[in-house]
Amino acid sequence: MSFSVEERGRENTASYRLYFRNAEEKYISPFHDIPIYADEAENIFNAVIEVPRWTNAKMEIATKDPLNPLKQDLKKGNLRFVSNVFPHKGYIWNYGAIPQTWEDPGHRDEDTGCCGDNDPIDICDIGNQVCSRGEVIRVKVLGTLALIDEGETDWKVMVINVEDPEAEDFNDIEDVRRLKPGLLEATLDWFRMYKVPDGKPENQFAFSGEFKNRDFAIKTIKDTHSFWKALISKKTDAGELNCVNTCVSDSPFCRSAGEARAVLDSAPPYSAAEPTPSSADKWFFYKQT
Amino acid sequence: MSFSVEERGRENTASYRLYFRNAEEKYISPFHDIPIYADEAENIFNAVIEVPRWTNAKMEIATKDPLNPLKQDLKKGNLRFVSNVFPHKGYIWNYGAIPQTWEDPGHRDEDTGCCGDNDPIDICDIGNQVCSRGEVIRVKVLGTLALIDEGETDWKVMVINVEDPEAEDFNDIEDVRRLKPGLLEATLDWFRMYKVPDGKPENQFAFSGEFKNRDFAIKTIKDTHSFWKALISKKTDAGELNCVNTCVSDSPFCRSAGEARAVLDSAPPYSAAEPTPSSADKWFFYKQT
Repeated sequence: MSFSVEERGRENTASYRLYFRNAEEKYISPFHDIPIYADEAENIFNAVIEVPRWTNAKMEIATKDPLNPLKQDLKKGNLRFVSNVFPHKGYIWNYGAIPQTWEDPGHRDEDTGCCGDNDPIDICDIGNQVCSRGEVIRVKVLGTLALIDEGETDWKVMVINVEDPEAEDFNDIEDVRRLKPGLLEATLDWFRMYKVPDGKPENQFAFSGEFKNRDFAIKTIKDTHSFWKALISKKTDAGELNCVNTCVSDSPFCRSAGEARAVLDSAPPYSAAEPTPSSADKWFFYKQT
Repeated sequence: MSFSVEERGRENTASYRLYFRNAEEKYISPFHDIPIYADEAENIFNAVIEVPRWTNAKMEIATKDPLNPLKQDLKKGNLRFVSNVFPHKGYIWNYGAIPQTWEDPGHRDEDTGCCGDNDPIDICDIGNQVCSRGEVIRVKVLGTLALIDEGETDWKVMVINVEDPEAEDFNDIEDVRRLKPGLLEATLDWFRMYKVPDGKPENQFAFSGEFKNRDFAIKTIKDTHSFWKALISKKTDAGELNCVNTCVSDSPFCRSAGEARAVLDSAPPYSAAEPTPSSADKWFFYKQT
């Protein structure tokens, strides 16, 4: 299954959007219409890349907008660029989300004691390839970290792109520890510190920051898929979430291709990018303990 | 004094060149015609940026070509992209050279016991701004590391762009240690390891890898300036180096603006870049000791 993207608005402004199309060139929601599984029997999942490795623009699936395009998060009205915390440059993985999952804010996790963050579940792809924004990749699940972000459970699932030349060597979290030494420690450091330059406190983790293994991670993803199923079938109240889709045929939110196209027709036209602000290049240093 | 650059050939091929012009729009050599000093009394030097921070293309002043444009180093006929050694992404400073300096291969350094590497002296700018390729910046000198590269002395001078908002806080090597914790250690690690992914041994350092201070670094730069003076006045044999210049009026290598323009006239025309090879994106891991 292949997907493509279409830009609207002006990059590096609040108007920028990246919409998704399926292989039939129909507009779809990356949140609801891309299947969670690339191969269910083999536990191969689809993942939507929101932030390519080494970039800073905090692009994310707009869960509250029709068709859920990627858009850049805003912070006090300004475009959000995640700070570079030394020794890291931007995001240190291809960062994104697994479609058809939802971290239900009404569900308290037994292990973490915290509710979900109202988003699809996040992934960190450790493959060598730097992905493109909006790319849909097929991933093997290796483990997960339980970030607690302002009192909400925000799972960060470690995955590897199945197209990676080394993918067959990676099957569980210990393979990452052995074959990419330092990367798990850097991942923990990165999530702990990344909001500190913006004046926020260090992030916390459940399980004392221990990474849980592949089986635990797969169960977590499947749980969030069941929460999404309840959402898309209107068994759970969606709140502000926009559940319009074009492929989930038994969903009361399912709409025609023509209605999806109308969303695009009302989006601002594409225009060339504004320059990236030089403030996004600053490197922040902190005393290592 | 302001400088500009002019691209020729096709980026990401062996044909690419970046030529320099001065404020009078005359073609110049960045090696010979940009003054070493921006302010001699204050020990403010000019520096030519060859490799912007976080990039990988090993661009360098072509010391053996007429007018010494920037070109990308070749390795066994292939364009050279310096490997990403985890946790680093590309070069971790704006990397470049101080004009009108020369590490004389016929001069054995008293301290290191090794001869020079036949290039202008290298700088690492630790400023927050990501510079552009070919940018000429004014820098304060903070210290230096004595890399021994295949038996040659290859000084790496730590500097800060005087335009940096924090420049006044940085006056010697200890300020870097205090205000950008981890950066000196990362610098040493980076230079030790950066050729290992290419199958080369770890690099060595004089002074057990200790950074020498500002005064030592300034003396080293002034020494290499005197070697350059001997070179440009033909008191030292230039060997394969191209010493053609347009501004060093008492140099036997000085040529007219028309002769300089003829060099550009024979360069290939500019054409749009080839894509950067994805192999440049690979991240190399090594067991930390």
